[in-house]
Order: sequence, then C-alpha cells, then structure tokens
Amino acid sequence: MATLGLIEYQEASPEVRAVYDDIMATRQTDRINNFWKALARDPVALRRTWQSVKEIMAPGALDPLTKEMIYVAVSVTNQCSYCIASHTAAARKAGMTDAMFTELMAVVGMANETNRLVSGYQVEIDEVFKAGS
Amino acid sequence: MATLGLIEYQEASPEVRAVYDDIMATRQTDRINNFWKALARDPVALRRTWQSVKEIMAPGALDPLTKEMIYVAVSVTNQCSYCIASHTAAARKAGMTDAMFTELMAVVGMANETNRLVSGYQVEIDEVFKAGS
Amino acid sequence: MATLGLIEYQEASPEVRAVYDDIMATRQTDRINNFWKALARDPVALRRTWQSVKEIMAPGALDPLTKEMIYVAVSVTNQCSYCIASHTAAARKAGMTDAMFTELMAVVGMANETNRLVSGYQVEIDEVFKAGS
Amino acid sequence: MATLGLIEYQEASPEVRAVYDDIMATRQTDRINNFWKALARDPVALRRTWQSVKEIMAPGALDPLTKEMIYVAVSVTNQCSYCIASHTAAARKAGMTDAMFTELMAVVGMANETNRLVSGYQVEIDEVFKAGS
Amino acid sequence: MATLGLIEYQEASPEVRAVYDDIMATRQTDRINNFWKALARDPVALRRTWQSVKEIMAPGALDPLTKEMIYVAVSVTNQCSYCIASHTAAARKAGMTDAMFTELMAVVGMANETNRLVSGYQVEIDEVFKAGS
Amino acid sequence: MATLGLIEYQEASPEVRAVYDDIMATRQTDRINNFWKALARDPVALRRTWQSVKEIMAPGALDPLTKEMIYVAVSVTNQCSYCIASHTAAARKAGMTDAMFTELMAVVGMANETNRLVSGYQVEIDEVFKAGS
Repeated sequence: MATLGLIEYQEASPEVRAVYDDIMATRQTDRINNFWKALARDPVALRRTWQSVKEIMAPGALDPLTKEMIYVAVSVTNQCSYCIASHTAAARKAGMTDAMFTELMAVVGMANETNRLVSGYQVEIDEVFKAGS
Repeated sequence: MATLGLIEYQEASPEVRAVYDDIMATRQTDRINNFWKALARDPVALRRTWQSVKEIMAPGALDPLTKEMIYVAVSVTNQCSYCIASHTAAARKAGMTDAMFTELMAVVGMANETNRLVSGYQVEIDEVFKAGS
Repeated sequence: MATLGLIEYQEASPEVRAVYDDIMATRQTDRINNFWKALARDPVALRRTWQSVKEIMAPGALDPLTKEMIYVAVSVTNQCSYCIASHTAAARKAGMTDAMFTELMAVVGMANETNRLVSGYQVEIDEVFKAGS
Repeated sequence: MATLGLIEYQEASPEVRAVYDDIMATRQTDRINNFWKALARDPVALRRTWQSVKEIMAPGALDPLTKEMIYVAVSVTNQCSYCIASHTAAARKAGMTDAMFTELMAVVGMANETNRLVSGYQVEIDEVFKAGS
Repeated sequence: MATLGLIEYQEASPEVRAVYDDIMATRQTDRINNFWKALARDPVALRRTWQSVKEIMAPGALDPLTKEMIYVAVSVTNQCSYCIASHTAAARKAGMTDAMFTELMAVVGMANETNRLVSGYQVEIDEVFKAGS
Repeated sequence: MATLGLIEYQEASPEVRAVYDDIMATRQTDRINNFWKALARDPVALRRTWQSVKEIMAPGALDPLTKEMIYVAVSVTNQCSYCIASHTAAARKAGMTDAMFTELMAVVGMANETNRLVSGYQVEIDEVFKAGS
C-alpha cells in the first residue's frame, strides 16, 4: 500500500482534479496511474512533477517513442519495478514493437556491462574525448 | 593508469590485432579507444565483448543513433565518466544534435527523479500494468 | 522467505537473545524486526551491526528524526523496499509528519535528477568547491 | 570540459540572465555554479530545473539545513563527485558543523550497508510495516 | 508476468531448443530458469548471452564457487531480487555453506558502507595506488 | 582534497594513533591509507569502522583473497574509483594474478548485464528459488 494512500478522482480537491484532468486529456486516456494518485498527497509536488513530465515528454528534437524508450532504459538500470512496468506499457502504446523492445534490452544490458568493465579496468578517458564537442 | 596498462596496436598479438582491425573497419576510424586497449589484456574477453557490442549496436529495429542515445542514458544513470564521454562522442558522430542531447538529458534526469518518487511513496503497480503485453 | 530463515526469540541462543533484549530495550518495543531475525544466523554480524546502528542512530549532533529521514533518503535512492518500509515507519515514530515526508521525497527526487544532469553534462567542479572547507 | 561548454553571464541571453539573477538573489551570492552555466545551453531546462529547486529547497516542514544534508546523503549514495562537493559546501553555509557532517556520513554509510544486508538475506517485509501508516 | 511471456521447451523453435539443451547439459539439470525462457523471445540475444555466461562461468583462474559468490555480490549491490535468488541457489549448489554465505554478506555490506564513506569524505586516491600494478 | 582534511600520524590524538598502530600491525605495513586519515576526523567512526573491517576481512569460511575480490566486485559495481584502486591493490597483495583479475572483471560485467536483462524483461522468480534453502 502506498505510504500515504492513493487519492481517487472523486475525493480529490479541485487543485488535484485539475491536474488529473490535464493528465487524462494530454494522454488521451480515462484513467490515472497510481503514481499520480500517490503523489497527490502533496498537491504542489503533483503539479510541479506533472508540468515537468508534460514539458519533457512532449515531441521535440526527439520523438515520444524514443523518449519513452530512454525512460525505460533508465528505469531498467535503476531496477525500478513500477517504472519498468508503467513505461514499458507507455512505450508500447507509443509504437514500440517486440523487436524494438528486445533490442532496447540488449543495449541496456551491454551498457551496464561495459560501464563496469571500464571502471574495473580503471580506464582513463581518451584525450580525444576530453576536448569537448 | 589502467590497472593492467594499455596494449597498443604495434605490441598487440595477432589475435588482438584482428579485433582491433575489425573495430576500426566497422567504425570507419583509424584509432582504438582506451577501453579496448585495456580489455586487450584478456584477449578472450576482448573478442567476446567486441562481438557482442558489434552485434547489438548494428542497425536493426532501432537505428544506431537511438542505440547510442540509450547507451548514454544508461551511462549517465550509472554516472560512469568514461562511458558518458565516449558514448556522447559516438552519439554525436551518429547525428545527435545539441537539441537532441539536451532533451535526452531532460528525460534521463526526470526518469531518475520519478524512479525515486515511486519507490519512496511505495506505489504499487497498477493492475493494468501487471497484465503483461 | 529469508535465505537462511528467521530466528525467533524462543529458539535463539543466549548470545542472540542478549542482542534482541538490547534492541527491544533501546527502542522501547516488544518486537524484533525480520531484519535482525535474519541476521541472527550470524551472531557475530548481528552483534556488530546492532552495536554500530545503536551507536550511529543515538542522539548526537543530529537528532534521531533527522537521522531516520537521512536513512529513508538513502534507502529510497537505493530503492530498497524493505528499508524504505521499515525506516519510514521509524521516522514516523520519531515524529515525521506527512508534510515532512512529502518534502523529504521532493528533495530526494530532485537530488537524483540533478545528480544525473551534472554527470550527463560532464560539469567540472567549480574551483571554489575544490578548496576544501 | 562540460559537454556543451559553460555560458557565462556576459554572453547569456536575457532569458538565461533572468534565471541567473534570480539564483544570485535567492542564494545571496554573486556567483553562478558551473551546473547552471552548463544547463543554460537549454534555457527551458534551466528555468524549469531552477524553479523546481527553488520551490523544493525553500523552508517548509523541513528547514534548509536538513534539506541540504538530505541532498548530500543522496549524492553520496549515488557517488556523484560534483554534487557531493557543491552540496557539502551548501550544507556548511546553511550551518552544518563538522560534527554534523561526520554523523551524516555515519548514517549514510550504515544505511548503504544494511540496505544490502536486507537484500542479500532476502528479508521479507514485516507485516506491521505493510499496514500503511 | 514477464513482459513478453516465457517460452517453454515444447513450444520453442529448434534454435532456442538447441540453447536450452546446452544449458541443461552444461548445468546437469533438467530445468530451464525463467530468465532464459524470457530471453528466448530474442533468440539471438539468448544464444549470445548464454555463450557469454557459459564462457565466463567455466572453471579458469577462479573456481566456479568463487565466481558464483562474486555474482551474488554484484546482484546484492544492485539489489536485483531475481538475481540474488537464482545465484544464491547456484552458489549453494556449487558448495557455498551457510558460514560462507554470511561472510559473503558481511563483506558486501561493509564494502557498500565504505564505498560511500570514501565518496562522502571526498578522499583522494593515495599516490601509491595510482602507480598502476 | 578530503572534506575535512587528512590527519597524519604525527598530529593524531592517542585514540587515533592506537587505531593507526593496529591497522599497520594487522596489515603488516608502515603506511596508513588516505581513507583512514580522512575518517580520523571522527575518532569514534574510525574505531568502529576499523574494528568492523578487521573482523570481517579476517580469515574465516572465506579466505582473505576471496574477500578482497568480493570487495573489488562491489566497488566496481558502485563505480567507486578510490575503492577500486585501493582494493585492487589489496587483492594483488593477497595473491590475485592478472588472470584472476580479468576473470573477476568478466563476471562482474556479465552480472551487471544480466541483472538489468532480468529487470527489463520483468522475469518472475522461479518457484524453485522461492523455497528457501
């Protein structure tokens, strides 16, 4: 059970409902994830976090599918069960196929392996990579 | 200095040189990163790791640029300095613009934040996300 | 089920019971958490760990509530479910209100975000921060 | 060198300068940390991140010093060198004494140890901790 | 439920069955872990990962038991529940006693503690450790 | 520079000197690592941490070399530069050959990869692994 419990739409304050409404409209869905219902215990944090997520995940130089896959990559690296489950679902909704998912996993796994090999062998950064862009 | 030192091309065994040659040919470059030079102390690991990286990073359901950005996302989450430096360079070479980089960072940062909010609020996975694909 | 099972008070050796008794007396409770019951398989580790925890969590330059919140912050960052559950309960017992909890989460989330932005942008430490205290 | 370089006040756009001005006014200082100068490459991210940090780190149910120490706890757990250096400095400015710092480190170290003991022994959450608040 | 479901032996393609057969022969068992059944959705990744694991975990300069304990140490540090459960079982099968397990946990716990103390105190690497091998 | 500076033997209090003397006697060396010199700012933490390390790293069910390699495995997974440098040196002193080191790295890298594959594919723990010991 969430630490402070979940706040359902019916019992939500107008401030919280406004955020819930915007989430549903933006995502074209009629349900609110448990994450937002838990965060609603802190209406200011709910608003701030949703505004940030909305701004960051909107189409830009990167398309929404790529952004969702990056979100999955981070969540898998952190081994956050909830985040993996919810963002894998979001990535699928955004168009991720099974083949794209398995390739995503392969890259994430390999990156976690080589990250440690680099550290373990105490490899110094190549001069060419230090020169900035 | 790398734990066991770096192995330069001139001093490399034929087995190691074969891998170096394949890396340079595949990546269309004339230099070898320190990572491979350090790993070359274990020729079997060098071959295995390179074959895996080559297979995983080849174009498939995901394009090479997307893969490199995912690699950066993992490396940033793990805070691996060498990996961030080398894969940011690789992503740029594959076409990552400044705008794509800054959006990538925004998603990675936000994902690391919400991963912890989810854990801290002890949010249970929504039933709909448990139903599998 | 815990790897080596849990050791209940009734079946515990005198050495383990002595630690259990001290835990209950120090914490003014009549129950022992599963953590200690699992660790009791290694009586030396049980004693050492409890002595360290007792010494570290005692009132000092920082008050017990602040210490418990720091414990929660670390556990959330590591995403350790058991630790989050038990130390959130301990922090509440020490006086953490709902408002303190939600602010704690906000700081933890934000710190995890900016930690990655710093790494991803490869920001160098400001000279003024290198000068020591 | 930061990936995209640092943006100094003199060369900053009016939008970036406004954020820099607010940072200096809020923190009562006449310098801008490298973190903000690096993030300024993405003015939208600069504004969003600063607004969030400003809102989260303001006095509330938790005092500024406690918040800075929590920030340090997270940064140490993530082993983010820049973040440890800058937030240790900020915590000191907010009143952290040497004795408070060493106690903070002791709690952070112990929490990281017991987090792993819990995971390694595969300890199940006590029923009493599952019952919510 | 695994994201893409599990592939049982009966429904597996000849390519996947060949890997399953090799796993069972190498490990002298008649069952396949869920990990491989999940990974089988990507036959190329299944083959590559199994070949790497087989090569790496074979007896060499380090014996199989030591390797399994190192696997457990990493999994505990990453707090990966599945990995801790499966590799603790594998380590026991390879000869790990209860006493070895509890000592393993003590080292893993202590290393996670001192890793953070080192970072938090911002300790510089001793010159003698920089001199390479 | 370490946050609170290093305490050299000559300037150390009798309490700190006693710990330094025990470290040098136990490890049969005439130098003290920077880690202990930094921690000496908190004599109680210095004593407690050294006593724990001394107790945990002593020969027992696991030999000192195996323990040092486990320490390296954890430090590499956490990517703690200081810890990798100092414990790799300690492992070598305890008898770790180059071949043992490269195999250690291979296992650590592979474990970090499969830890993420397991999480990413959301693999459930096999019933047989849940049955305890």
